[in-house]
Amino acid sequence: MAGSTIGNSFRITTWGESHGKALGAVIDGCPAGLQLSEEDIQVFLNRRKPGQSKFTTARGEGDEVEILSGVFEGVTTGTPISVMVRNADQHSKDYSDIARVYRPGHADYTFMEKYGIRDYRGGGRSSGRETIGRVAGGAVASKILETLGITVCAYTKSIGEIGISHVNLEEMESNQLYMPDTEAATRAAAYLEECIKRQDSAGGVIECVISGMPVGIGEPVFDKLDANLAKAMLSIGAVKGFEIGDGFAAARANGSTNNDAFVGDGEAVYKATNHAGGVLGGMSDGSDVIFRVAIKPTPSISQPQQTVNEDGEQVEISIHGRHDPIIVPRAVVVVECMAAMTVLDLLYANQSARLEFLQDFYNKQE
Amino acid sequence: MAGSTIGNSFRITTWGESHGKALGAVIDGCPAGLQLSEEDIQVFLNRRKPGQSKFTTARGEGDEVEILSGVFEGVTTGTPISVMVRNADQHSKDYSDIARVYRPGHADYTFMEKYGIRDYRGGGRSSGRETIGRVAGGAVASKILETLGITVCAYTKSIGEIGISHVNLEEMESNQLYMPDTEAATRAAAYLEECIKRQDSAGGVIECVISGMPVGIGEPVFDKLDANLAKAMLSIGAVKGFEIGDGFAAARANGSTNNDAFVGDGEAVYKATNHAGGVLGGMSDGSDVIFRVAIKPTPSISQPQQTVNEDGEQVEISIHGRHDPIIVPRAVVVVECMAAMTVLDLLYANQSARLEFLQDFYNKQE
Amino acid sequence: MAGSTIGNSFRITTWGESHGKALGAVIDGCPAGLQLSEEDIQVFLNRRKPGQSKFTTARGEGDEVEILSGVFEGVTTGTPISVMVRNADQHSKDYSDIARVYRPGHADYTFMEKYGIRDYRGGGRSSGRETIGRVAGGAVASKILETLGITVCAYTKSIGEIGISHVNLEEMESNQLYMPDTEAATRAAAYLEECIKRQDSAGGVIECVISGMPVGIGEPVFDKLDANLAKAMLSIGAVKGFEIGDGFAAARANGSTNNDAFVGDGEAVYKATNHAGGVLGGMSDGSDVIFRVAIKPTPSISQPQQTVNEDGEQVEISIHGRHDPIIVPRAVVVVECMAAMTVLDLLYANQSARLEFLQDFYNKQE
Amino acid sequence: MAGSTIGNSFRITTWGESHGKALGAVIDGCPAGLQLSEEDIQVFLNRRKPGQSKFTTARGEGDEVEILSGVFEGVTTGTPISVMVRNADQHSKDYSDIARVYRPGHADYTFMEKYGIRDYRGGGRSSGRETIGRVAGGAVASKILETLGITVCAYTKSIGEIGISHVNLEEMESNQLYMPDTEAATRAAAYLEECIKRQDSAGGVIECVISGMPVGIGEPVFDKLDANLAKAMLSIGAVKGFEIGDGFAAARANGSTNNDAFVGDGEAVYKATNHAGGVLGGMSDGSDVIFRVAIKPTPSISQPQQTVNEDGEQVEISIHGRHDPIIVPRAVVVVECMAAMTVLDLLYANQSARLEFLQDFYNKQE
Repeated sequence: MAGSTIGNSFRITTWGESHGKALGAVIDGCPAGLQLSEEDIQVFLNRRKPGQSKFTTARGEGDEVEILSGVFEGVTTGTPISVMVRNADQHSKDYSDIARVYRPGHADYTFMEKYGIRDYRGGGRSSGRETIGRVAGGAVASKILETLGITVCAYTKSIGEIGISHVNLEEMESNQLYMPDTEAATRAAAYLEECIKRQDSAGGVIECVISGMPVGIGEPVFDKLDANLAKAMLSIGAVKGFEIGDGFAAARANGSTNNDAFVGDGEAVYKATNHAGGVLGGMSDGSDVIFRVAIKPTPSISQPQQTVNEDGEQVEISIHGRHDPIIVPRAVVVVECMAAMTVLDLLYANQSARLEFLQDFYNKQE
Repeated sequence: MAGSTIGNSFRITTWGESHGKALGAVIDGCPAGLQLSEEDIQVFLNRRKPGQSKFTTARGEGDEVEILSGVFEGVTTGTPISVMVRNADQHSKDYSDIARVYRPGHADYTFMEKYGIRDYRGGGRSSGRETIGRVAGGAVASKILETLGITVCAYTKSIGEIGISHVNLEEMESNQLYMPDTEAATRAAAYLEECIKRQDSAGGVIECVISGMPVGIGEPVFDKLDANLAKAMLSIGAVKGFEIGDGFAAARANGSTNNDAFVGDGEAVYKATNHAGGVLGGMSDGSDVIFRVAIKPTPSISQPQQTVNEDGEQVEISIHGRHDPIIVPRAVVVVECMAAMTVLDLLYANQSARLEFLQDFYNKQE
Repeated sequence: MAGSTIGNSFRITTWGESHGKALGAVIDGCPAGLQLSEEDIQVFLNRRKPGQSKFTTARGEGDEVEILSGVFEGVTTGTPISVMVRNADQHSKDYSDIARVYRPGHADYTFMEKYGIRDYRGGGRSSGRETIGRVAGGAVASKILETLGITVCAYTKSIGEIGISHVNLEEMESNQLYMPDTEAATRAAAYLEECIKRQDSAGGVIECVISGMPVGIGEPVFDKLDANLAKAMLSIGAVKGFEIGDGFAAARANGSTNNDAFVGDGEAVYKATNHAGGVLGGMSDGSDVIFRVAIKPTPSISQPQQTVNEDGEQVEISIHGRHDPIIVPRAVVVVECMAAMTVLDLLYANQSARLEFLQDFYNKQE
Repeated sequence: MAGSTIGNSFRITTWGESHGKALGAVIDGCPAGLQLSEEDIQVFLNRRKPGQSKFTTARGEGDEVEILSGVFEGVTTGTPISVMVRNADQHSKDYSDIARVYRPGHADYTFMEKYGIRDYRGGGRSSGRETIGRVAGGAVASKILETLGITVCAYTKSIGEIGISHVNLEEMESNQLYMPDTEAATRAAAYLEECIKRQDSAGGVIECVISGMPVGIGEPVFDKLDANLAKAMLSIGAVKGFEIGDGFAAARANGSTNNDAFVGDGEAVYKATNHAGGVLGGMSDGSDVIFRVAIKPTPSISQPQQTVNEDGEQVEISIHGRHDPIIVPRAVVVVECMAAMTVLDLLYANQSARLEFLQDFYNKQE
């Protein structure tokens, strides 16, 4: 229990169910002095909004964010920032067909077994709408990181078997799948059309690049940068895998090719290659931090599936209604936001790594 | 900082450097009433001991564990269990060749940049020897899980490009690579011989299966079972990736094939397949929990490599001495131990999931 | 930073400023299966509401609580319970007189020095209104404790120099000062009238009794029951002291009179006296847990005071407006609520104290 | 469970029983770059050592500390510092008289009820020897604070009814009771002689002053400086009360006399008085932080006491052996150490209070 909080010094606590009154988050640990408006958060939320294309649900979610605390005269005060999004159509649907049936690939069964009760409307707490709070927290973290020269950028790397062959962020803007390769996006769109026809769904891979990282971010043992990123990513609903740098390919490589040579000119030190993905010993090494996450296909499909009901009886289920044939495009911003918060939290921790840092800080303070 | 602790209610805090006086862990949250001896921990430690084969370093590490607290008359008392392993040969070597040079693929550079100082002997805190404390904690967790009917079993799934074609645990016992497929193990051994000849190293994949899990273990949002496993795994030195169930393959699948149908006979509920890897919505679903981790090739290789020294000058380094050509076989028990502790911690949390659980417990207590 | 959360397994995160849009809390770790309505929380909030007597401010705070998540069809689901109270009159006042002046006894100066910015309206985050979230959390915790046979009851023990001479809870109901001694309450009321005339304020002591505690609640070292209660109490705005059992009087006693003899009849064990206040070695001992907290006089008084402004210039301030001459009566319910949450959190932790508890639980679960 | 750790960013985990093999602590979060030797810790440990006077037990505890990790070439590396003290005479005594009897005022009964097993030798985990780990952690924290110009100083304020009338630290050095008033110390010594004759024990009050604090240390809601100090203090075995500034006396005062006027000269701001004890709204206000703790009389007394045994039968017990007639003098250093760690932990947290702090830090880092 009490598993709705993540982060140590920069942390969010999310709350809310898909069809409850509202969803939101408390963002605690935001420093004072950041200019922050609801619009700053809204632009991030809009990226995960449904109804943007035929590949995302048409459900009319307004998802307008309200900041309830922590900001005074447009500036953060160092106190917790509470954000909320009201659910517009919480009573709009008849759930009798799924109220007592466990949908395959969903958390219905496990939720019921754990708690003995569940809010079956739209997945309740296990809905993708839970990520609203994460995105709000990530919007704040991203804005802070930006002032430090750190950017976090995620994009769709592959959908089904179709992968990108290059990364061009301008191309990403021009398609609804967030693929930085227009040609791949076109093929992926055709594939998704086909999935829809077959009443089926698809998965994919999201890649994320963090640029501008100082060296040494992350703690050497359990709170490694990559370990905390892995937890943050796997905590997102449909994520089934995480890899950093060469990841699983590194397991097939040799040391001589997987090691990144250091290069120095007496001033800056950098790496000739980046198989490591920007992390050595759990700490950022100055290269871009690069990782990928695997997203499973949307479990809600309209073709008939075998399952059981709450009485343990075998039944067939067909899940109708508005469901994305793919989760990936809307998850891109969620990956980005979880990464931003993870990095920021470890940036705080790093401030007391050396005695001289403390001494400089408290001398300066007086 | 303060990143040397993992777990909430069952937690370990590890300490120690490769060539310091000793290494160890404080295991906090072990319930009272467990029969525990040093031998229980030693058998786990022996599995990670070097010198077991030509593929592990010949360094004469005794690694004899001493229990310093928390056990009275052979039984745990509920107080923290402090365990320690003395380092035998802490002054045995001349480190002048690496003392001021950053080894590629190691944490030398990042450690130095973060802290401004580092114990360069054998990798210091970033040494694989840090896992001694993890294995001790995992030995205790495993013994507790065993009494609950839960077993955690890891093995080598692949080395380089050579993968197993079946899992036979008896075969695993008969080879030094912990591969549950004798034929694959033979080929992998030949491949490693070849790597040694080339002064190179190899990586591989470890798979872990947790059996006997009750349904509902894991918390639905941030402390998902798979999220906590992912963090635990990526916190192990050379791990570069984590996937649960079909993992990255799920990203290429369709919902219709990736979903696991539920099957019920009016009594038990189970899944017809296990693409999910035993976790739905972050909670165990009653199937085996199955995950894999990618281990990079040993970064210490004796062929010459380009790097820089502490002055940022370009230098060439050849790392001599005793180094495993592969980390995988010795990491198997570490994966198992981190998994055992992760599961146990979430088993505790689950005890207060329902009001009736609390009521039953406290009525019973009187 | 990130200091707005308290508790480990049952925890609340509070947010909100006195004159912001709203205040609230996320209550995480409430077990599933508790019947819960807004009314359950409202009755607790009403006890801290202003305007109940001439000794509490007349400000028209509606303080109507809204439950936004975590409850489905009147029953908790195990997911976080988000509660919110809208601030009615957030723009109603002119703060120009105190916007740039540091009120003595308040957090204006420290807040400004720490953050460089502050919401000066009504004390902002440091307002007593922050306790709304605490009371909501405590209302939920109290309802859970009640089902376990545990009750938490606080009352005013003294106001200024006037102390109660007996505890009669019925008498407490009949006066506005929450004193369980009508005669003392009458004298205290007269004293407060006098304070008001003098444009001054008063402090007092609140006592709290927790009955029905099982033996062994609390962890033996840092998370002692009394240690966690002490933190919970001192985290309340105006609290300046905490003592358990005989407290500071024990420091003047002898072992022979301060020790509580155990009494046994072969069945139950109890203590002949309760100087310890129900805690031995940080764990509940089966007697009532009894502690007291010291509340300072309301710092806002209307007589002129010397202070400085944001430029560090000496100024005189007279704080007008509606301010309680005493905080104590409204703090009674806050003390009770913080105690209830502290106890519940440690009741959870105790569930895994013994291996047999885990074994019983997971055998029972199947 | 898992209650053996305190602190967030600077934290210690203590372990060990009175008569087990050893006791110790893992100190995690110490910044790199601090010169640290075993002698630095030993001088603190010597202050809590028994056998220093006739008022402390004559048990021959060597208590020689060993640093096992975290220090390289005399300087901390940022990794956890493991410290250990071996127990010299762990098998030296016959405990048959108390093995099955619950000593009044001790944790024997509660420990047994909670865990079903206890190490009865010398109090086991509940022994005062557990504080060895705390003192080691505090020695490190104090050394860090010293470099920041912050000093923590505790002394005996009263023993029984005998209080000091002034604070002269030189006088403190010249008596074994750590009273900064020689005349009071002489009277207290006579009182303790009398207690010994009566086979009885005494309690007392310790006061602690923290000087040189920057303004703004402490977090405004739950992690208030005084709240965290209160928890740290009540977590010490025999502590029954905590008060800051005027404490319980403030509860009897009026706002006009309890408020501290701010004084400014256009440059520095300070307080004309310090009734608040250096904390406003949970944050340090620039004045000395002053608090007191109440210590109960030693529960082990040699006169006969009524109690029960493990079968719940009424028995009489006389506790013989070496027991201090008073805990206070040896607890002085423990109070100081817990305070030092609490303050340091909050000094870390304060480093990210403002966005400009983060910006300055990471610009400076490059």
